[in-house]
Amino acid sequence: MLNDSEKNKRRIALVGAGNVATSLALALQNAGETIVAVWSRSNESAMLLGKRLECSFTTEVELLPDADIVIITVTDTALPAVARDVAKHYPKALVVHTAGSIPMSLLYESGFKYYGVFYPMQTFSKARIVDFSTVSLFVEACNKEALEMLKSLAGKLTDKVYSVTSEQRRYLHLAAVFACNFVNASYSMAAELLEQNGLPFDAMLPLIDETARKVHNLQPRDAQTGPAQRGDNTVMSQQRELLDEDFRRVYDIMSEYIQKNRHI
Amino acid sequence: MLNDSEKNKRRIALVGAGNVATSLALALQNAGETIVAVWSRSNESAMLLGKRLECSFTTEVELLPDADIVIITVTDTALPAVARDVAKHYPKALVVHTAGSIPMSLLYESGFKYYGVFYPMQTFSKARIVDFSTVSLFVEACNKEALEMLKSLAGKLTDKVYSVTSEQRRYLHLAAVFACNFVNASYSMAAELLEQNGLPFDAMLPLIDETARKVHNLQPRDAQTGPAQRGDNTVMSQQRELLDEDFRRVYDIMSEYIQKNRHI
Repeated sequence: MLNDSEKNKRRIALVGAGNVATSLALALQNAGETIVAVWSRSNESAMLLGKRLECSFTTEVELLPDADIVIITVTDTALPAVARDVAKHYPKALVVHTAGSIPMSLLYESGFKYYGVFYPMQTFSKARIVDFSTVSLFVEACNKEALEMLKSLAGKLTDKVYSVTSEQRRYLHLAAVFACNFVNASYSMAAELLEQNGLPFDAMLPLIDETARKVHNLQPRDAQTGPAQRGDNTVMSQQRELLDEDFRRVYDIMSEYIQKNRHI
Repeated sequence: MLNDSEKNKRRIALVGAGNVATSLALALQNAGETIVAVWSRSNESAMLLGKRLECSFTTEVELLPDADIVIITVTDTALPAVARDVAKHYPKALVVHTAGSIPMSLLYESGFKYYGVFYPMQTFSKARIVDFSTVSLFVEACNKEALEMLKSLAGKLTDKVYSVTSEQRRYLHLAAVFACNFVNASYSMAAELLEQNGLPFDAMLPLIDETARKVHNLQPRDAQTGPAQRGDNTVMSQQRELLDEDFRRVYDIMSEYIQKNRHI
């Protein structure tokens, strides 16, 4: 016989087995939640994550076991088709997606009655498991009960839980592209410049860390430094000369932004 | 009478009283070094830092007291003229500048016989004192004795001390512009997008921190995530629609770099 806490346990199914699913599933298990199964279009991905979580795995949505919450983490492109399949199989579960730029209404249109969004704003790579206590989680739901359920689930992973609309979430995702993806691209350009000159990228890490730490206490605008901020045209024109055409375009466009926005 | 350790103490004079001078001087004092005086063109800056360091301060180079090491931290633009004044006053001291993009030869041309470079690669703001133990310091000198002296001074502040040529230092500075100044500009754009939509920049900090942490273990190229990396053209064209012309140029140019460099 099941005891009360076992009876009350939420059963969670994961649809998708990529970077987000991996970190999220491990965090949920660590928080005491029960993952009952993993689905992926790819048998290898399903098996890898299923084995890691010690739960069942499948490539057939129809073979997924009963669940109270279904978390869909597939790519934005795959989401509409996958959501329709999931809706047929799970008419009663609370179903959420984790995408930054997909409106919640897609789930309604896919045939769900009970749905929401569970958007962890973080950069996920399989090579690195994310500590969810440091993640901001943005939730949205079709009704108050679902919202409370998602807030309670999110609250087990992090204390940074925010309730936002689909429209706000689009801007969050867009801001994340600037603050994470374009930031990493800038790191990457720095790494290329150093490598071409026999210099170690590691020497850059203290600077990278301090640049991130600074905006915990200062507005980014007030934290800005460098030749463009100082209006040092001599250094800027010398630096442009060191760059190839692609990097020079980045240099010019970023310097222009900094100069337009600097405090005089 | 002076005891041996007092007699052997290096006397350091600071020429410049800006962001670099402030953090560097406090770190040197903490490491047990003696700052004898501060010069700045601005009386207010000289006084502020002089009082903070409890040392003398002046706006006249000729009034600076005897020193064994002179550290010039003025802006690149001011450096040539200031260096000529300092050379007349300190013909025997070891004189260094702290600039990323100025070749060491400028000091020779300014009339120094004994000179070098002491380049801390970090982002300095007066509002925030930098912990020098986390800074990479790049040194260069006119001869072996001067190089050893600078390495010993640098080694009291951090264990990340590198000996580099002027040419390498130009690329270090350029890489720092990408990894720090352009990174901060991206944070700033994210902050603008959030502010326009009533969203808190603080929600971004976990993402910013993780993005920086990731490149401690992964090459930036391998750490890249986001719509451009995934080749998700739907999200990319939706995101472009949310941006004004200036931000869209940044979006396009950074996305193009990411797409050119992604692992397929």
